[in-house]
Amino acid sequence: MPITIGNVLDEADFASVAELLPQLMWADGTKTAGAVAREVKKNRQADLSTRSGTRLRELVQTALRTHPVVQAFARPAKWSPLIVSQTGEGGGYGTHIDNAFMGTGDSRVRTDLSFTLFLSEPDSYEGGELNIDMAGMTHSVKGARGDLVIYPSTTLHQVAEVMRGRRIVCVGWIQSLIRSGDQREILFDLDNLKAELLASHDKNSPELLTLSKTLANLTRMWGE
Amino acid sequence: MPITIGNVLDEADFASVAELLPQLMWADGTKTAGAVAREVKKNRQADLSTRSGTRLRELVQTALRTHPVVQAFARPAKWSPLIVSQTGEGGGYGTHIDNAFMGTGDSRVRTDLSFTLFLSEPDSYEGGELNIDMAGMTHSVKGARGDLVIYPSTTLHQVAEVMRGRRIVCVGWIQSLIRSGDQREILFDLDNLKAELLASHDKNSPELLTLSKTLANLTRMWGE
Amino acid sequence: MPITIGNVLDEADFASVAELLPQLMWADGTKTAGAVAREVKKNRQADLSTRSGTRLRELVQTALRTHPVVQAFARPAKWSPLIVSQTGEGGGYGTHIDNAFMGTGDSRVRTDLSFTLFLSEPDSYEGGELNIDMAGMTHSVKGARGDLVIYPSTTLHQVAEVMRGRRIVCVGWIQSLIRSGDQREILFDLDNLKAELLASHDKNSPELLTLSKTLANLTRMWGE
Amino acid sequence: MPITIGNVLDEADFASVAELLPQLMWADGTKTAGAVAREVKKNRQADLSTRSGTRLRELVQTALRTHPVVQAFARPAKWSPLIVSQTGEGGGYGTHIDNAFMGTGDSRVRTDLSFTLFLSEPDSYEGGELNIDMAGMTHSVKGARGDLVIYPSTTLHQVAEVMRGRRIVCVGWIQSLIRSGDQREILFDLDNLKAELLASHDKNSPELLTLSKTLANLTRMWGE
Amino acid sequence: MPITIGNVLDEADFASVAELLPQLMWADGTKTAGAVAREVKKNRQADLSTRSGTRLRELVQTALRTHPVVQAFARPAKWSPLIVSQTGEGGGYGTHIDNAFMGTGDSRVRTDLSFTLFLSEPDSYEGGELNIDMAGMTHSVKGARGDLVIYPSTTLHQVAEVMRGRRIVCVGWIQSLIRSGDQREILFDLDNLKAELLASHDKNSPELLTLSKTLANLTRMWGE
Amino acid sequence: MPITIGNVLDEADFASVAELLPQLMWADGTKTAGAVAREVKKNRQADLSTRSGTRLRELVQTALRTHPVVQAFARPAKWSPLIVSQTGEGGGYGTHIDNAFMGTGDSRVRTDLSFTLFLSEPDSYEGGELNIDMAGMTHSVKGARGDLVIYPSTTLHQVAEVMRGRRIVCVGWIQSLIRSGDQREILFDLDNLKAELLASHDKNSPELLTLSKTLANLTRMWGE
Repeated sequence: MPITIGNVLDEADFASVAELLPQLMWADGTKTAGAVAREVKKNRQADLSTRSGTRLRELVQTALRTHPVVQAFARPAKWSPLIVSQTGEGGGYGTHIDNAFMGTGDSRVRTDLSFTLFLSEPDSYEGGELNIDMAGMTHSVKGARGDLVIYPSTTLHQVAEVMRGRRIVCVGWIQSLIRSGDQREILFDLDNLKAELLASHDKNSPELLTLSKTLANLTRMWGE
Repeated sequence: MPITIGNVLDEADFASVAELLPQLMWADGTKTAGAVAREVKKNRQADLSTRSGTRLRELVQTALRTHPVVQAFARPAKWSPLIVSQTGEGGGYGTHIDNAFMGTGDSRVRTDLSFTLFLSEPDSYEGGELNIDMAGMTHSVKGARGDLVIYPSTTLHQVAEVMRGRRIVCVGWIQSLIRSGDQREILFDLDNLKAELLASHDKNSPELLTLSKTLANLTRMWGE
Repeated sequence: MPITIGNVLDEADFASVAELLPQLMWADGTKTAGAVAREVKKNRQADLSTRSGTRLRELVQTALRTHPVVQAFARPAKWSPLIVSQTGEGGGYGTHIDNAFMGTGDSRVRTDLSFTLFLSEPDSYEGGELNIDMAGMTHSVKGARGDLVIYPSTTLHQVAEVMRGRRIVCVGWIQSLIRSGDQREILFDLDNLKAELLASHDKNSPELLTLSKTLANLTRMWGE
Repeated sequence: MPITIGNVLDEADFASVAELLPQLMWADGTKTAGAVAREVKKNRQADLSTRSGTRLRELVQTALRTHPVVQAFARPAKWSPLIVSQTGEGGGYGTHIDNAFMGTGDSRVRTDLSFTLFLSEPDSYEGGELNIDMAGMTHSVKGARGDLVIYPSTTLHQVAEVMRGRRIVCVGWIQSLIRSGDQREILFDLDNLKAELLASHDKNSPELLTLSKTLANLTRMWGE
Repeated sequence: MPITIGNVLDEADFASVAELLPQLMWADGTKTAGAVAREVKKNRQADLSTRSGTRLRELVQTALRTHPVVQAFARPAKWSPLIVSQTGEGGGYGTHIDNAFMGTGDSRVRTDLSFTLFLSEPDSYEGGELNIDMAGMTHSVKGARGDLVIYPSTTLHQVAEVMRGRRIVCVGWIQSLIRSGDQREILFDLDNLKAELLASHDKNSPELLTLSKTLANLTRMWGE
Repeated sequence: MPITIGNVLDEADFASVAELLPQLMWADGTKTAGAVAREVKKNRQADLSTRSGTRLRELVQTALRTHPVVQAFARPAKWSPLIVSQTGEGGGYGTHIDNAFMGTGDSRVRTDLSFTLFLSEPDSYEGGELNIDMAGMTHSVKGARGDLVIYPSTTLHQVAEVMRGRRIVCVGWIQSLIRSGDQREILFDLDNLKAELLASHDKNSPELLTLSKTLANLTRMWGE
């Protein structure tokens, strides 16, 4: 299931983003698409190896990697390189499935979860919805600036054609410590339960010890 | 790990047991041993198809199957037929492993857990300990009358030679809904946590709903 | 993910339903709720052992069990007994999780999937939505007469309070041959692919043989 | 991997078979084929509910179910009904995959292993080989009278066209206690090792106890 | 199951091989054998750290790692170091099993698949067959120059004694992204199906999207 | 199950230890505790980056990593950094569970097994027992100097308050190649069986080849 986490970037972050975006260098986005995806991908992507690109990448990485809900929901083991993408009028990304693995060697990432961090205000462009196919139903997202959507990479999805304006997002993939979404949900629920119980119980109480033990042992059993 | 649960039979039960035991018919115990176990098994077993045998069997079955700790620890899906065994001087049961499956067709039972319910007082016989081999250490049990020991059928175990008196026990096997002992322990811990939290939380509180959901979903994931 | 399948009952079925419903006997619904669910369940349930109840049950069972989309999506191995439920003003069913197993012995059913078949028109009552909690989002369903909703039993869900009128539904649970929803989705997709390819390929063509082999072997690997 | 076990029926069995075969009633074989297989299946099958059919079925079942190599290799949990099939000139069975499950309810069988027991001498017919596709190589079998071939039901296979004479075989399917062929091979090897060691070691020696424990515990871990 | 892939090296490759082989330095082969294998291994192995050895190694590695059938069949995640082995008269390699893991730390390789690339023409030596034990049957291979045999490392195998001439091969091991051979076969079949369908369908057609999704999601589920 | 292995350090080792211990630098031990454990941990830990610390660390690492019983029982894939801990009067470590993972990136270790190597004689301090909770029973260890206790990290455990003297131990964690304790036990038993059989059988005998094959293939199946 997708979740949306609001305000992953704050106002100070967006001040930096506003300064950095105009300085970026952009290239055609098909180079990072798998064989199937290539011909349906119409966007431009920023070169993140420039000085401005590096600063933007680090700003976003820090925001994502330190966010407690991202940690608890996704349990990241590895992150793909980030992509900053802009899609202008007539651009979009047809229905596709993400490759199961990206990169090679130590930097190979199994794509358990995909994410989109919205850098443009939704009223600054028409179209451009992220449409995720969930067992025949379409889950459509057009997030506010600073919203992060995390969704299973196992879904067919697309970016609808942009009809007006320019959509700028940051996208990437997460290999989770916990491969199965069903298992991640159980750990997420138990983490939330633990946070709730800490309000009324000492962390060395039998209740919290039992819960900590269960969380640790499920993580041992499932973690990769 | 073995656990011992005390007083699984109460005084009223033992009054009935005392009345029924002398009425039982006994036969040589080797008929229920697997190929390896046969030659090391020296005991006598009661015919539980007689009228008295049936009453004894039903009394014990009811006590075992309705005991809340047995339920929470073992999560029984199927029970083997019960055996009432007496071991006299010079008898015992050499080191052996229980067969993985007993019975055939619908009554086939995978032996996840073995149990011994002690029907004699421990000072009424010498020797006769149940010795369970746990990774090189011996866990030795000689329970009080009414004690139930449940232990993993995966262990080598023996009944030490009886040196004096007569040891009477009831033994059997449980196929658990949850095959793995590590998983059973997690469910047992969460069940205990739930019981503790019910003292302070409403069962429809978010905390209890989360815990009930987790217990149900782990049982769905693991239950066979 | 929930799916909704329309027109599972047809007009002829509804003529029979209209005739049978007034003849049913009704009792309080708390008797079929688990411990947690009991106090949040406010509805009435039909006695399906009467002559009219039996006819209604058979009509619905036949419609469900022979429906090709139900087969392909759910791959039923076992069905729980059906429940016909009516909820009047002020009734509903608070947030709860379904028990992981229902029934005992051979009729024990692992509840992989829950379903609701709507027997009333949605404009004949106010409220009464089926609200399914999906990772923090609420998926709300108020189906047309004859709609069947199938959803994972792993979710917290509720029936919203009925504010006016009377909501009549038929509910039940399915143990799937395939325990994991992720695996069921793969088989569902391959089944659909096979149906599509049969339009252009002979069923003994290499393409269809490969696909049939894969479907059979994944079912062998995962089926329980 | 397929194995061939010789002389599963002995001379006395074949005397009975010779007497019973002429008394059987035969019908078209397409009725037991799955949807894909139907149009490629050209044979005739005996009615095993007649008096002669019943005797033949029981004779073959007994031979199969009591054979020690069949037990050790296949570890049967359930058997499909037997089929006695005759294929005349021009008959055969095109390339197909066996259904993953056969039958319904308690008699449902997962087809882990397929078998063919040859009832005709190989020189009494031309063609009629059982051809099993193993990762692109064809494993071709035309067994002697009394040979039993057991092979994974996961393979595409066919019966080559019979060019002359009449091929009579008995076929069926086995659901193994152990779903995975890799796991069955490990148990088969350890069973053989145990038989070898019993020639030189006492069955209660530490070596044999360790081996018996391992065999029992792997069976507990994997058995279904 | 073993497969043989022909012409993995082409004529230009063999011209280089013919030039490089005489320049290699050779040492006794027992140093790379596990404890059990050591005393049955009688061959000589080339030093691949010399200039000529390095060129030969790179030539072979490139040919193996870029071959599409090797990719689709084996799905390599890691490769062991290559070994170039020559076996003269009286040499060979007795029946043995390959170690489950080779190397340490990051270069540790789980040996899922073993391979032999034949560098000599088969008529240039007598004996020297690679004999693979498959459930009691022997699969014997003596490949043409340039043939690559890939087979499961789970099998007992041997190199028969060389009776005349000199057998030169290149051998190594592959850790697959997909541990189980049954799962690799399913992905291999679906990959082949996809290649076939691409001849008649657009890669963004619903059929191909479904197939690409299934391939990606099975790889996510199984890939390590 | 915990095991205790005696004399992991020998007299020569202890001469070095006696020389090195007085030269170590010590700091408060809470810095290496997880969030739950922090407030119950009262000890001091040595700085192992000093010259003396490095020598001590290497001495202990070598002893642990080359010990054949440690190898066979734990099958280490990764080791956490070592900790040398001293606990004085009033110190101890309350009941806690070890984190499931320690470290980050390539040095991240899943804590399958915890160990304590005793560096002080048990009569040199009062209290300070390592108490391991095993399904409700407490397994209490106060080892001799040079004893190593290895126990599952899945258990709640504590170090009892030291009442007199000073307890010095070396502790750490092991990520096993084999995640499940049940599986490790099977491999440990088969390893021991192999060692026993090597006394009477040639290592290339059919018996030993079968056993080596089974050990290798179970390790392939389970190793991570």
